[in-house]
Amino acid sequence: MFDLISYLDTKRRLINDALNELLESSFNSRRIVSAMKYSLMAGGKRIRPVLCIAASEAVNRTNPDVLRAACALELIHTYSLIHDDLPAMDNDDLRRCVPTCHIRFDEATAILAGDALLTMAFQVLSSTESINKNNAMKWIKVMHVIAYAAGYEGMVEGQMRDISSEGCGLTLDELQEMHSLKTGALIEASISVGAILGCGSQNQIDQLEIYSKNIGLAFQVADDIINVEGDPLFMGKAAGTDEARQKSTYPSIMGIEDSKKFAKKLISDAHLALADFDGRADPLRAIAAYIIERKC
Amino acid sequence: MFDLISYLDTKRRLINDALNELLESSFNSRRIVSAMKYSLMAGGKRIRPVLCIAASEAVNRTNPDVLRAACALELIHTYSLIHDDLPAMDNDDLRRCVPTCHIRFDEATAILAGDALLTMAFQVLSSTESINKNNAMKWIKVMHVIAYAAGYEGMVEGQMRDISSEGCGLTLDELQEMHSLKTGALIEASISVGAILGCGSQNQIDQLEIYSKNIGLAFQVADDIINVEGDPLFMGKAAGTDEARQKSTYPSIMGIEDSKKFAKKLISDAHLALADFDGRADPLRAIAAYIIERKC
Repeated sequence: MFDLISYLDTKRRLINDALNELLESSFNSRRIVSAMKYSLMAGGKRIRPVLCIAASEAVNRTNPDVLRAACALELIHTYSLIHDDLPAMDNDDLRRCVPTCHIRFDEATAILAGDALLTMAFQVLSSTESINKNNAMKWIKVMHVIAYAAGYEGMVEGQMRDISSEGCGLTLDELQEMHSLKTGALIEASISVGAILGCGSQNQIDQLEIYSKNIGLAFQVADDIINVEGDPLFMGKAAGTDEARQKSTYPSIMGIEDSKKFAKKLISDAHLALADFDGRADPLRAIAAYIIERKC
Repeated sequence: MFDLISYLDTKRRLINDALNELLESSFNSRRIVSAMKYSLMAGGKRIRPVLCIAASEAVNRTNPDVLRAACALELIHTYSLIHDDLPAMDNDDLRRCVPTCHIRFDEATAILAGDALLTMAFQVLSSTESINKNNAMKWIKVMHVIAYAAGYEGMVEGQMRDISSEGCGLTLDELQEMHSLKTGALIEASISVGAILGCGSQNQIDQLEIYSKNIGLAFQVADDIINVEGDPLFMGKAAGTDEARQKSTYPSIMGIEDSKKFAKKLISDAHLALADFDGRADPLRAIAAYIIERKC
């Protein structure tokens, strides 16, 4: 039986150490670095970097370069949370049980910290220490996959649709598309990047894409369920906020029971996509199950 | 005598066409794309992309790839303007004579449009069409130079210092450092990137760095002078706004006449750095002069 808890614990420590190291510098006391670090180290689940590493392990063995890409993905995820929480966007005061960046610092600092984390992701991805003539094309591809997923054809468009849709009822298709852009794109990119850096075969990359589409969507359905049912102590923010904002969610469109069934079906499809993989894909299998079992 | 007006006109048209083409897509009617395009096409001077192209010409002849990097620089510059104008930052309603992005659209859209333009810059830089095994390392270097200049050790830190210093008097050294981060870093990067993609020699790259440091600073001194003396019709925004905000500026610290002398000295040093270049550096020479002669 694969021990997910200890796997996640090991990988998270690895990722946290690497993220910490990235922001260690002589300028450490500066306000911008404090704000970046504050949000980056506020206890995130590190799902995206873990998925990136797990995907590279599923097609190959660990590649130390993958950790760098994994960190870049978490930098981008953290930037997106900081900007999403801003008063002009979701106006959230709490995130992961602590005040959001603009509450702890101020709005201008939070905007800039987000900008800085996003930019830093590409600084990390293009840092030439371990890039050489032989692997440069792979890194270019990785940067393109990440930029595409995070940008106006991916995550940013998803957030734009999310805030534009508050108060308007979305159809299930519109909701699905919004989430596949807002959350799915970066999760899919995390897995693609792991597979690319792990030198997976085209067939492996294709199967992992199916896996990632299913868990990306399941992740969001689970988030919506947690928002209705969740324990605020676990969630780090108030429950029921989606309903208060009249946001379209899976529970609001499908009902809570059908949402749970849907999430389970997605996870089962994700498992199916991994049928041809050996035991090295066990972390990916366990993560899929964890996504709908988590409480926050 | 080099004809700067027609040079700028030609290059700007080239850059504008390329920028327009980047945002041509089937999703063109989307709100996020409208906001990105609105700010990107609001009549910017295109100084950074022109400098990038001119630097590559100074060391070599035109390289079609340079245009892509030049566009990325303008995408980043535009994002920084959109975010700087936000209510939480400089709270400017007008930019280049038209309403700023958050006035024309709304605050959330402006934040996202900025995020999207920044991300798109790296999407453009890593688009694999014309990158191959032979030039991939050069593009990795270009991305690193740009990310470093735009990020928390460059432009973002400069903006952080700028907004933190409102109302507090800065020393001349502090002012200089703030500007070299906020404006200088991306201008220097523009020139470096042109020199790298143009395959300049190390000596040429070094000389161009001196040139760029001088014009970067001169650019800011000139901006401060324009803010005091400028014609709002030319500037596209109200004159005297720095004073109203109690911002430290060159005129407020050195006085207006000494600021003008200082700007002239910087431009003369910039010219000196180009002494070993032939006629292909004439555009760079003319741009240096133009920086302190412009009215907006």
